[in-house]
Amino acid sequence: MIRAGIIGATGYAGGELVRILLGHKDVEIKWYGSRSYIDQKYADVYRNMFTLVEDTCLDDNIEKLAGEVDVIFTATPQGFLAGILTEEILSQCKVIDLSADYRIKDVGVYEHWYGIKHESPQLIKEAAYGLCEINREMIRGKRLIANPGCYTTCSILTAYPLVKEGFIDPSTLIIDAKSGTSGAGRGAKTANLYCEVNENIKAYGVATHRHTPEIEEQLGYAAGEEIRVNFTPHLVPMNRGILVTEYATLKAKNGKFPSYEEIKVVYEKYYKDETFIRLLDQGVCPETKWVEGSNYVDLNFVIDERTGRVIMMGALDNVVKGAAGQAVQNMNILFELPEKSGLELVPMFP
Amino acid sequence: MIRAGIIGATGYAGGELVRILLGHKDVEIKWYGSRSYIDQKYADVYRNMFTLVEDTCLDDNIEKLAGEVDVIFTATPQGFLAGILTEEILSQCKVIDLSADYRIKDVGVYEHWYGIKHESPQLIKEAAYGLCEINREMIRGKRLIANPGCYTTCSILTAYPLVKEGFIDPSTLIIDAKSGTSGAGRGAKTANLYCEVNENIKAYGVATHRHTPEIEEQLGYAAGEEIRVNFTPHLVPMNRGILVTEYATLKAKNGKFPSYEEIKVVYEKYYKDETFIRLLDQGVCPETKWVEGSNYVDLNFVIDERTGRVIMMGALDNVVKGAAGQAVQNMNILFELPEKSGLELVPMFP
Amino acid sequence: MIRAGIIGATGYAGGELVRILLGHKDVEIKWYGSRSYIDQKYADVYRNMFTLVEDTCLDDNIEKLAGEVDVIFTATPQGFLAGILTEEILSQCKVIDLSADYRIKDVGVYEHWYGIKHESPQLIKEAAYGLCEINREMIRGKRLIANPGCYTTCSILTAYPLVKEGFIDPSTLIIDAKSGTSGAGRGAKTANLYCEVNENIKAYGVATHRHTPEIEEQLGYAAGEEIRVNFTPHLVPMNRGILVTEYATLKAKNGKFPSYEEIKVVYEKYYKDETFIRLLDQGVCPETKWVEGSNYVDLNFVIDERTGRVIMMGALDNVVKGAAGQAVQNMNILFELPEKSGLELVPMFP
Amino acid sequence: MIRAGIIGATGYAGGELVRILLGHKDVEIKWYGSRSYIDQKYADVYRNMFTLVEDTCLDDNIEKLAGEVDVIFTATPQGFLAGILTEEILSQCKVIDLSADYRIKDVGVYEHWYGIKHESPQLIKEAAYGLCEINREMIRGKRLIANPGCYTTCSILTAYPLVKEGFIDPSTLIIDAKSGTSGAGRGAKTANLYCEVNENIKAYGVATHRHTPEIEEQLGYAAGEEIRVNFTPHLVPMNRGILVTEYATLKAKNGKFPSYEEIKVVYEKYYKDETFIRLLDQGVCPETKWVEGSNYVDLNFVIDERTGRVIMMGALDNVVKGAAGQAVQNMNILFELPEKSGLELVPMFP
Repeated sequence: MIRAGIIGATGYAGGELVRILLGHKDVEIKWYGSRSYIDQKYADVYRNMFTLVEDTCLDDNIEKLAGEVDVIFTATPQGFLAGILTEEILSQCKVIDLSADYRIKDVGVYEHWYGIKHESPQLIKEAAYGLCEINREMIRGKRLIANPGCYTTCSILTAYPLVKEGFIDPSTLIIDAKSGTSGAGRGAKTANLYCEVNENIKAYGVATHRHTPEIEEQLGYAAGEEIRVNFTPHLVPMNRGILVTEYATLKAKNGKFPSYEEIKVVYEKYYKDETFIRLLDQGVCPETKWVEGSNYVDLNFVIDERTGRVIMMGALDNVVKGAAGQAVQNMNILFELPEKSGLELVPMFP
Repeated sequence: MIRAGIIGATGYAGGELVRILLGHKDVEIKWYGSRSYIDQKYADVYRNMFTLVEDTCLDDNIEKLAGEVDVIFTATPQGFLAGILTEEILSQCKVIDLSADYRIKDVGVYEHWYGIKHESPQLIKEAAYGLCEINREMIRGKRLIANPGCYTTCSILTAYPLVKEGFIDPSTLIIDAKSGTSGAGRGAKTANLYCEVNENIKAYGVATHRHTPEIEEQLGYAAGEEIRVNFTPHLVPMNRGILVTEYATLKAKNGKFPSYEEIKVVYEKYYKDETFIRLLDQGVCPETKWVEGSNYVDLNFVIDERTGRVIMMGALDNVVKGAAGQAVQNMNILFELPEKSGLELVPMFP
Repeated sequence: MIRAGIIGATGYAGGELVRILLGHKDVEIKWYGSRSYIDQKYADVYRNMFTLVEDTCLDDNIEKLAGEVDVIFTATPQGFLAGILTEEILSQCKVIDLSADYRIKDVGVYEHWYGIKHESPQLIKEAAYGLCEINREMIRGKRLIANPGCYTTCSILTAYPLVKEGFIDPSTLIIDAKSGTSGAGRGAKTANLYCEVNENIKAYGVATHRHTPEIEEQLGYAAGEEIRVNFTPHLVPMNRGILVTEYATLKAKNGKFPSYEEIKVVYEKYYKDETFIRLLDQGVCPETKWVEGSNYVDLNFVIDERTGRVIMMGALDNVVKGAAGQAVQNMNILFELPEKSGLELVPMFP
Repeated sequence: MIRAGIIGATGYAGGELVRILLGHKDVEIKWYGSRSYIDQKYADVYRNMFTLVEDTCLDDNIEKLAGEVDVIFTATPQGFLAGILTEEILSQCKVIDLSADYRIKDVGVYEHWYGIKHESPQLIKEAAYGLCEINREMIRGKRLIANPGCYTTCSILTAYPLVKEGFIDPSTLIIDAKSGTSGAGRGAKTANLYCEVNENIKAYGVATHRHTPEIEEQLGYAAGEEIRVNFTPHLVPMNRGILVTEYATLKAKNGKFPSYEEIKVVYEKYYKDETFIRLLDQGVCPETKWVEGSNYVDLNFVIDERTGRVIMMGALDNVVKGAAGQAVQNMNILFELPEKSGLELVPMFP
């Protein structure tokens, strides 16, 4: 039995970790960390857990925690883990970080986009970027996993095969992303009140959203060159789900654009054996509702010969594959369990 | 391995049966019946099932089906099963009917409220009313289960202990119920379009809703006398969930109303060992979101000494405990499996 | 031109006052009071007002304000106005209070339910309870209007004729109310976040909601006796709208319950000439969507002969007829304008 | 008094025409045409109109109607008006068509994208494309107005100044559009049911949506050359509103991209005197909620120097400025009324 601790267990991602781990037969949650709710019953914070979780919220004493568990999940604000993580902790247990602290290899880029100083840059190098389908081999055996962001997971997986195989010009890549409101977290802000979000859609963080450099770094590795993308997130009146619509100019070969079948083959090359990536049938557009509550990513694409562009689309549940589900998938890899253990969640409809 | 067939697999309750049974380790779905989608891939109708279900929809030939499976679930319109069910079918397999056809013992009452003739009244008597927590013993060994309605499950369980133990005057019982829109089914009707339901709440079927006699019959058994209740359903702009708010006059004993503790004891007498019924802590009101996707019923009550009434509240997921989940719970009882097999669904939040 | 000032202009009711008054040809808003946003542009707080309102938010200096306007609307927390209102202010301008401070005649009842001390009880007596359709004559000429609560307006108007004319037993009255989330205000609370309210319904304030004594007082006047009611509010995932479903036992006359036509006549007696009360056709249930954005109250009823009860239903927009619209209606009465001036708002659908 | 007739009065756009025209002091609606609801009371179809509209739905006899009114609005399916419009009708009254029949000048393009034969191509030439802010002068004096599509109005207005003034390369223009569900109409389709749309977002009509050629034609006029754009619509779980996010590569001048101020000047050149176009302050992103119920279009842009692109954003209410509101605006121009008559609708929030 893997003993797990969660720091930040009362945010939405933390709550989803609890939901998933409760159904994971090889894991036992030993520590529900939550600075805001110390000494309160966890099931009083998330009443869906009533009768399922009897524990009380504990503090975020990660040093103590490290001695008591096999893996720590941190679903904490940016900069928090970087400020407390030590070699000693990592020598005792695995750490899977759902924040951005160890995702970006260039500490200068991190500090520029996040506007904070990184307190443990020496640990960045050893962290594996936990995008399981792409980096599976790099993840195995690691002590520290940087679990990817929700937008980034969806954005990267949607474009990855075509970038990797050189079918699109990466400098033309535009990512228009739409997210449910759980992505905004459980903090009490006026902008996230029901009446402000409901019956409304808006873009935000235009040209400045912090997931941009993460996407650029990872897709840059695939492209074999530095790339710059436009990434625009939008807030959608729904609880869960991310949909990305990505546009890029196809590279013509001998004056001809690749056909549907040729592009399909590229996607299949990378994803046809992936449990959690579903390449939809031709003509079917991904919808967030079809993956809700599950670890799936649904992908598809349309070629527009009129403009010479491909429109790529991807959908996932931001709280599952975009956060807690992928974290558990990373844990499974680290502990040499079947990758889908505890993640055979059938999407819920309606 | 229990072989199961579903007739009406493409309605919302049918789709939920599939979701639940896919996670039930002792069951294999052999027949996805759907008159409207014959020969279409099931996963083209419910794309959440893409890669999970490879089957094609079949017709509703229940006689053929009966020879191939151990249990048939019928999630069909009122009157359908009554028109085709035979002794021969029942001699071959179990039938769990999610429609109302065998719920009401008095065929005259059924025909009055449903406005149709019952085609197989001779089978009504042997059907067990599958409200598991109340009728568990009557269900065992039966061939035919009348799975309770969504509103009725919630309405009955919420009031049952106080009716049964005589703490309230059943003639004063008023049930004000609120349901998510999946309860209205997947038929293409203008009244159920997004723009008609969204940002709206209304009562419907006032004083005439068909779940009324079902509630009256079952609570009448508990009361030991015929009762008449007011039952008013409302349509709420959400996908899933039923909340009932029930009002009844407390019976005073020696001029005193029962205390909170006395009533709590009554609820605990009936429910404290029930996995799927959660008696909330004092002061906590049930919310549909806390049970979403699960088989739980959350219950609580408030005594209003000013008026001498008790306000009882219950919440469940209409598609799970109100339909498919309870059907699987009945199946588990019939096949002598642990009652919670396949039903250990953690509510999803948010 | 009536000069108006608003204290509390940046709450939802305050914002709606601005929306309505901008379309009122006889009114000019001179003061946008908002303690939280002093010196910020009003249109930066409510961007729907961009280019429509150029003013900056001012403080809540009601004494200064009183000298500059003809009417002050206060959309402020309970107790605020009671703490600052003086004879001197009332001698200079009309005050229409959207809080509860002057609604309840018995200061002890107010202090009991609201849990605060009333700082100006001497002014309660002169305040008119501004339920226009019932109290129109009492409102005329007054200096201080206690604008009714949203739930109370709907609850009272729905039952008033039958209480007044003795058709129901007021001791049996049960009010089950459902409200959109704007009724919870614009304060940044976790419980009102999008993800907490969306896809959810719950009761709250069961047997303790502060609108209860207000309903009891006003319906008590109609009944000619003290009454006690059960009032249960519910939070519905929609922005606007209140629906009440009210249950009461009909009084039989000569062993017979009143007929539909007899009850209809009673409703018509009180409401048939009322612009803002719409008595729906037989069989049509009120829906909040049909009155959204307008000052209408839609009413109807169903007789249940089986139980001897009448089910009365009413729907209004909580921000309009339940708050700002009724406040403007009161203003029109006070200033001897046509009662519907500025209020000819056609409900918006969808 | 202008006498108006509406053919297609019971669709969502038709209903909104009624809402707006009821508040237009110079217009009287004489004909509520609706093939589906002939002889039914209009207020039984749209109950928000109860007590406001006493009329009964009439057929779509446009020849008879033409003799009785000054203007006909047609909110009908594609191809309908083209099949019945005649010179004789146009000689008797103005026609404002909310369908696409006369929007596209090249009948071959129309027939290609719409897949139907145009039955009155000889009338296309005289129709004015009723995008009021751009084509005001062309509209005056016309008999036939092709009212623009909802997506196209938003898409064109958002990019027009930069295309017209040559600040962007039009071949790089990508339009990612998001619409509320009223845009899908009131037809009873499974895909538009509450439970299918709610908690979901998807793209549809990718690379094939019929508004594409309309956008290309109008922006082509502005560019002075043929252009091809990518236009991708998405369905959002809300009733009203369209948001477009548009991406285009800025043209550098002397190796420098234009500054924020330079681009702002271009937008102001075209829009600063337009009542219904609001250029938001720097850094503020348009939100559909801020224009709900009104005829406003809110616009803004962000320069991304990293990629050399400008991100342009526009929001409007698809039923108002995207349909009925703009139709009334066109009527005002045709009848030489102030353009904002009947359209001074303050956006409703929340």
